[in-house]
Amino acid sequence: MSIAYLNGAFLPLAETRVSVLDRGFLFADGIYEVTAVIEGRLVDSASHLARLERSAAAIGLTLPLPSAQIEAVQRELATRNDLEEGLIYLQLTRGADVSRDFLPSPDLQPTLVMFVQAKRFLDSPAARTGIAVVTTPDLRWTRRDIKSVGLLAQAMAKQIAVHAGAQEAWMVEDGFVTEGASSTAFLVTEHGVVTRPYSQAVLAGCTGAALTALAEERGIMVEHRPFTVDEALGASEAFITSASTLCQSVVSIDGRQIGDGAPGPMATRLRELYIDFAIKTAV
Amino acid sequence: MSIAYLNGAFLPLAETRVSVLDRGFLFADGIYEVTAVIEGRLVDSASHLARLERSAAAIGLTLPLPSAQIEAVQRELATRNDLEEGLIYLQLTRGADVSRDFLPSPDLQPTLVMFVQAKRFLDSPAARTGIAVVTTPDLRWTRRDIKSVGLLAQAMAKQIAVHAGAQEAWMVEDGFVTEGASSTAFLVTEHGVVTRPYSQAVLAGCTGAALTALAEERGIMVEHRPFTVDEALGASEAFITSASTLCQSVVSIDGRQIGDGAPGPMATRLRELYIDFAIKTAV
Repeated sequence: MSIAYLNGAFLPLAETRVSVLDRGFLFADGIYEVTAVIEGRLVDSASHLARLERSAAAIGLTLPLPSAQIEAVQRELATRNDLEEGLIYLQLTRGADVSRDFLPSPDLQPTLVMFVQAKRFLDSPAARTGIAVVTTPDLRWTRRDIKSVGLLAQAMAKQIAVHAGAQEAWMVEDGFVTEGASSTAFLVTEHGVVTRPYSQAVLAGCTGAALTALAEERGIMVEHRPFTVDEALGASEAFITSASTLCQSVVSIDGRQIGDGAPGPMATRLRELYIDFAIKTAV
Repeated sequence: MSIAYLNGAFLPLAETRVSVLDRGFLFADGIYEVTAVIEGRLVDSASHLARLERSAAAIGLTLPLPSAQIEAVQRELATRNDLEEGLIYLQLTRGADVSRDFLPSPDLQPTLVMFVQAKRFLDSPAARTGIAVVTTPDLRWTRRDIKSVGLLAQAMAKQIAVHAGAQEAWMVEDGFVTEGASSTAFLVTEHGVVTRPYSQAVLAGCTGAALTALAEERGIMVEHRPFTVDEALGASEAFITSASTLCQSVVSIDGRQIGDGAPGPMATRLRELYIDFAIKTAV
């Protein structure tokens, strides 16, 4: 039985509940992080915890535990659940209020919940074959730099993708790809790789940031600029990054084949570099 | 003790909880309605239930109970809680899934929760004095016609308003007022009243729709068009409508007085018309 964490207590996930007055449930007034676990240890943990603090600050929340203690709980969850490979999900909300009002009562006790999901992503079929992507208008709010739980637009985009036989949706605004519904979007050009710079228009992807740093260390040029769907369709390769996919090749966009329709050398190399980094630095 | 409804059961609100795997909590994958109760009966109920069905359909949800049964539960809640005047909150989410994934599992059991909040809005101080409004950029997603629980932008706007000493925020996009954080925005001109037409840019307000119908029946012209902040600042009156405020005058915008700084004759008359309609048609 999966063991979760809720506000200081470890309990079975199936019995982990929050009040219907929790502002996470009523207002999507909360933030989250997803951290990969490989070989039982947390991947790129400091980066996820730093982003958690940034998201919290952006909506006026303070972490109820210091980052180091949050990490200790995450490690404890991995141990208690015998999680060798998978994800740790963390959500922090403004907490339950005495009644529903857009304006929260002062001094609410935040809700901090964490649970694990076993998932094999090192040896995943999608990593071997690559994935199909469809493009769809970006319906989201303007503060996508905040990793908020207001994810209905992304969930809708993902459903559009799956109904079209694809695995991910790339969201498009003003002709430019912003990012994937749950991943960062990349292209490969003759010069190197291209990905959108961080701003309020996209989430600062932890996995993408680590991967571009690894690429640059090896002399691969990383251009931080927006790209259009047309440029993507003409690219030699495309790929996505996220905590739950690491790095996966995109072999088609809107049904049109990218490159030779199989994972290309750049995405394959970067995936290997990232996995090597992940295993070496996991805590 | 307040009694709530959750998926067929009546139970104390303080003990009404949902799984942390509920997609309402994890993805804001849900919708809501707020219905006023006056003299123990539901105000404009058919309109709220129709909008609930539209919101549900827009995100691919089916109501787990027919509208008539939902209304019966709401009436039962009013009775059980001795609610003479206040609100009934209803939230419908896609339900709890076996694990967290942007793509929901098929055939999830939706979560339907309802609870009441006592509130005096017939004889409220804000109705007598009018309210102050501040303007703030509209950060929301593009499907504001769906009454989704993804309300962080609205909650942030409301906090901006209250920190500025105001009671409501009018959200502004491309120079035009879209709507209030939790209300519909109106102006009064020499011709009649002005409010933004319904589109994906704003929620179709039930109270605003009923009120404009009442106005038109009495020969008051209603212009459905966007208006700028500048036009609002120069208006003879401004007001808001919502289930929880009915109709309230706006006596200042961004600190600048509107009209003579007190509720004007048009807003006062429309409020009276609406309350008369509400009492006469409540079920």
